[in-house]
Amino acid sequence: MAKNPPARGLGALIAHSLIILSVLVGAALGGNPVVVQYDFNVEYVYGAPDCLEHVVMGINGQFPGPTIRAKAGDTVKIRVTNKLHTEGVVIHWRGIRQVNSHNSENLSHVTLNTPWADGTASISQCAINPGETFTYRFVLDKPGTYFYHGHYGMQRSAGLYGSLIVDVADGLKEPFHYDDELNLLLSDWWHKSVHEQQIGLSSSQFRWIGEPQSLLINGRGQYNCSLAAHYSQSSLKPCNFNGGEKCAPQILHVQPNKTYRLRIASNTALASLNLAIGNHKLLVVEADGNYVDPFVVDDLDIYSGQSYSVLITTDQDPSNNYWLSIGVTGRKPETPQGLTLLNYLPNSASKLPISPPPVTPQWDDYNHSKSFSNRILAAKGSQTPPRFYDRRIILLNTQNTIDGYRKWAVNNVSLVLPSTPYLGLMKHELHHVYDQNSPPENFPTNYDIMKPPVNPNTTAGSGVYRLHFNTTVDVILQNANALEEKVSKIHPWHLHGHDFWVLGYGEGKFSQKDEWKLNLRNPPLRNTLVIFPYGWTAIRFIADNRGVWAFHCHIEAHLHMGMGVIFDIDGRNVKNIPPEALACGEIARTSIKKAKISNP
Amino acid sequence: MAKNPPARGLGALIAHSLIILSVLVGAALGGNPVVVQYDFNVEYVYGAPDCLEHVVMGINGQFPGPTIRAKAGDTVKIRVTNKLHTEGVVIHWRGIRQVNSHNSENLSHVTLNTPWADGTASISQCAINPGETFTYRFVLDKPGTYFYHGHYGMQRSAGLYGSLIVDVADGLKEPFHYDDELNLLLSDWWHKSVHEQQIGLSSSQFRWIGEPQSLLINGRGQYNCSLAAHYSQSSLKPCNFNGGEKCAPQILHVQPNKTYRLRIASNTALASLNLAIGNHKLLVVEADGNYVDPFVVDDLDIYSGQSYSVLITTDQDPSNNYWLSIGVTGRKPETPQGLTLLNYLPNSASKLPISPPPVTPQWDDYNHSKSFSNRILAAKGSQTPPRFYDRRIILLNTQNTIDGYRKWAVNNVSLVLPSTPYLGLMKHELHHVYDQNSPPENFPTNYDIMKPPVNPNTTAGSGVYRLHFNTTVDVILQNANALEEKVSKIHPWHLHGHDFWVLGYGEGKFSQKDEWKLNLRNPPLRNTLVIFPYGWTAIRFIADNRGVWAFHCHIEAHLHMGMGVIFDIDGRNVKNIPPEALACGEIARTSIKKAKISNP
Repeated sequence: MAKNPPARGLGALIAHSLIILSVLVGAALGGNPVVVQYDFNVEYVYGAPDCLEHVVMGINGQFPGPTIRAKAGDTVKIRVTNKLHTEGVVIHWRGIRQVNSHNSENLSHVTLNTPWADGTASISQCAINPGETFTYRFVLDKPGTYFYHGHYGMQRSAGLYGSLIVDVADGLKEPFHYDDELNLLLSDWWHKSVHEQQIGLSSSQFRWIGEPQSLLINGRGQYNCSLAAHYSQSSLKPCNFNGGEKCAPQILHVQPNKTYRLRIASNTALASLNLAIGNHKLLVVEADGNYVDPFVVDDLDIYSGQSYSVLITTDQDPSNNYWLSIGVTGRKPETPQGLTLLNYLPNSASKLPISPPPVTPQWDDYNHSKSFSNRILAAKGSQTPPRFYDRRIILLNTQNTIDGYRKWAVNNVSLVLPSTPYLGLMKHELHHVYDQNSPPENFPTNYDIMKPPVNPNTTAGSGVYRLHFNTTVDVILQNANALEEKVSKIHPWHLHGHDFWVLGYGEGKFSQKDEWKLNLRNPPLRNTLVIFPYGWTAIRFIADNRGVWAFHCHIEAHLHMGMGVIFDIDGRNVKNIPPEALACGEIARTSIKKAKISNP
Repeated sequence: MAKNPPARGLGALIAHSLIILSVLVGAALGGNPVVVQYDFNVEYVYGAPDCLEHVVMGINGQFPGPTIRAKAGDTVKIRVTNKLHTEGVVIHWRGIRQVNSHNSENLSHVTLNTPWADGTASISQCAINPGETFTYRFVLDKPGTYFYHGHYGMQRSAGLYGSLIVDVADGLKEPFHYDDELNLLLSDWWHKSVHEQQIGLSSSQFRWIGEPQSLLINGRGQYNCSLAAHYSQSSLKPCNFNGGEKCAPQILHVQPNKTYRLRIASNTALASLNLAIGNHKLLVVEADGNYVDPFVVDDLDIYSGQSYSVLITTDQDPSNNYWLSIGVTGRKPETPQGLTLLNYLPNSASKLPISPPPVTPQWDDYNHSKSFSNRILAAKGSQTPPRFYDRRIILLNTQNTIDGYRKWAVNNVSLVLPSTPYLGLMKHELHHVYDQNSPPENFPTNYDIMKPPVNPNTTAGSGVYRLHFNTTVDVILQNANALEEKVSKIHPWHLHGHDFWVLGYGEGKFSQKDEWKLNLRNPPLRNTLVIFPYGWTAIRFIADNRGVWAFHCHIEAHLHMGMGVIFDIDGRNVKNIPPEALACGEIARTSIKKAKISNP
């Protein structure tokens, strides 16, 4: 990144929460990177995500939070002020790797990385206490479709999220053409408060959160009615819809005969989604901020934590409008489709399409989903993975219990985070605060993944996997049967601080004979994968980003129940951590004693 | 306190949460003081305080929390572990002065005080973060009826409270006789969660919390039904009541012809209560942990934060049971009476009394309430106040607005606490973090307390009153009209770290001519006073306890809206503060920089 680049125009960077655009003046290097500043005040606000009033966690009075938009190579500074009353808060910048590198293909020389800005409570930083302000500062390392969200307790599910879009650096171009773009941030919504959801999950009388009441598109849904009610035998009444209703969906206005880039990101807490647009094909061009080899589909699966860009061409009958629908897949849906309209201008936005919305594929049609996943391959010319791995860790995903409490575990360890962030514990060598034994690298060979665990008891643990810097690591995520017979769930796993290559998917237990199935030629780079029921997914990544990084199921309730692991990649040698990132817990206590200012 | 007293029996100290009774062996001094330890795990639990299931903040799975019981002079150690998910927590030990003195009449020699153990977030300590444990350690300085509760956000209202009872030291006797005792911890309960209550209060579209749905006695009430339904024209249906119902009130079992001490403490968030027992007189003997000149009443007013002991004699017809009722006073009540039974053994506990429950006095019969307040005088032989004050501060209580937000203010300053606790800011001289100007000592002489404020705008402030150590301070609390015409509310004000003498009450604006009304002969010592609508209340105290202490309206919503002030009494020179009490915010940041361990 250029330290002293020349000024550039404000352009599209003006936003409600964008306070200052600091432009450093000096010699240019690369695409004129700048420093873009935002002020985020996190507080609860009254909202009505699905038309029913509900308390929602917002930013600057908005839900979803303001969209962050800047160019690759820019530095973003976000001053987050916690205006909650008793809760801490952090914000994770989803898909941003926290490396000070612009489109780098080899991160091994990156020393000025910013793992302390990853926004994961108990891992990368202390939660920001009520009344405090914490400044995140990081480089947008590559263009793409990202988002941000809370990463403490289940605050992501409470509404703490927004879009983060990184444009290509000045002078560079996306490898595809489009006339304009539309942004779709997808989520799911419950009427039960997140506090109650958490308590139910953590109680000895376990209470599952259930299916969401509504699916939201850009924070909007409609409960207890359907825009498409009169097309079908739906028991839902038609929604009021004349345009302009506070609760109406955000309409997607398009001009006929143009190409649009739809940026689609899923921040669901639980739901895996399938998205389709009536009469329109989707050309998939980007996944998780990485270009893919373009391919055409009628509908797109998107798991929690993932993002895509698809191109659509508005070449259909311009006198009609068209549905955009999202529906639940991978779990028996009890939530109505989320709907909005692709409004061909100059048609009225309130004109409903002539046919019903696209039908979401059967929820358990996993072949449909696997077929989609297998079509995602790296764009031509992308970096290929190293041919060999230095270490392979196999992670068995199981549902378990501890003293009657329901948990998820990985190789029979259910993750419990320490109250002092790992990054600080590594940095200051405060190793007594977390489990010193690393969790297992594998699971017993005789474990039958097709059956419920013979012994459902598991243990809680805070141990970490220590990965050597700059080594190549394979992880095989192995799915299994849950506690109940004949149940195996979908899990979307997300890795912090790195992209990984998805080498392949398979059925049953991964074994030597599956080795040949791994794609080392053109596997896609991503940050969130999916494991299908009773299957495995193999990934490879280079541990080239110093820090302490979570790798976890992106289903909010599953992470809360322990479904994650921690990778320490030479966290000891991370430089330039702002003191305020670690000013809590054992680090603060130790420092006060060392500074001898408390008991003079 | 004896440093090395001999062992003594465990006696009544055994309790669910009482983990260890450390008995130090050595030379005795005074009443064989010991160290009593408790482990408190704070977490949300499913409860049903008024028979409707609701999430409630509990301790060790219980609501209300376990009763703490020990003897005057004992040291109590309470290890509080925060098992909440994203919220900090503290616990305030209500009425405990945090002085290391047993029944001292002159605290001026107290240097080993423990203001850091007062359990007030942002004032005496950092909130305990999720997963962390903090150990409170303090001496029970005098016998009495106390309680404990959360003092962060509105957690007290969420259910974080329990009883704290201090018996006289071994070898000493209470100055009155009783055969046995009964404990009544009173509170009020809302169905709307405390999070939602807080958001409504803090919103620019102000939403008042409304009247409580239920009144609770020892954490139990009955919603939407009345035990006494069939006595009256009540629209409520009768409650199920055969004895043994989970939701039935806790029955007070008594033997005929005995004397019982009723310990009554009010932890209401809002309601001022009136308590009566059918057919029985109440002999008031203790107020806020101080003996009073005994007097007999038919019913007793108790404001939020106060406690009393009353003696009753079970000399009524032993074939009947009798009602104990609590009802709302001082605000137009919309909450049914709270009821339980005084069960004369061996009668069945489910036998209802022959007559309806006592009628709560008309809510706005302030003469009744003032008459009660005026009867409270110090027990003979009690310490009298100094004849002269060194400083008199007059505090005008007004309802105001800031940028459209509804607030309460004191001398036109609405209190906003800093995120780093004051005690640490004084100790470490970090004065840039709070307002350096002290708030005003008085209000403009032309202010008309009978009218709404002419200019309702107020300012937020975090300044403190600096009281010189060992000086005598008078505070005149002056009530006024709220924002709405002809409305002036009751406010119970509570002082931390000290008892004060209540010198008197008066109508209208306090002036020179009221001076003669002040009682310097036998004013009662208390820690919580009441100001009546359009009236004033005068108190005097000796600022002999080093620390930073809150003085605030004990109505949870009013404090949340800024109704309080801060007294700094030589906080700079407090000794022996455990580092973990202050390991947050500016103190932690400063220490980390000083210790130079973050950026080696």
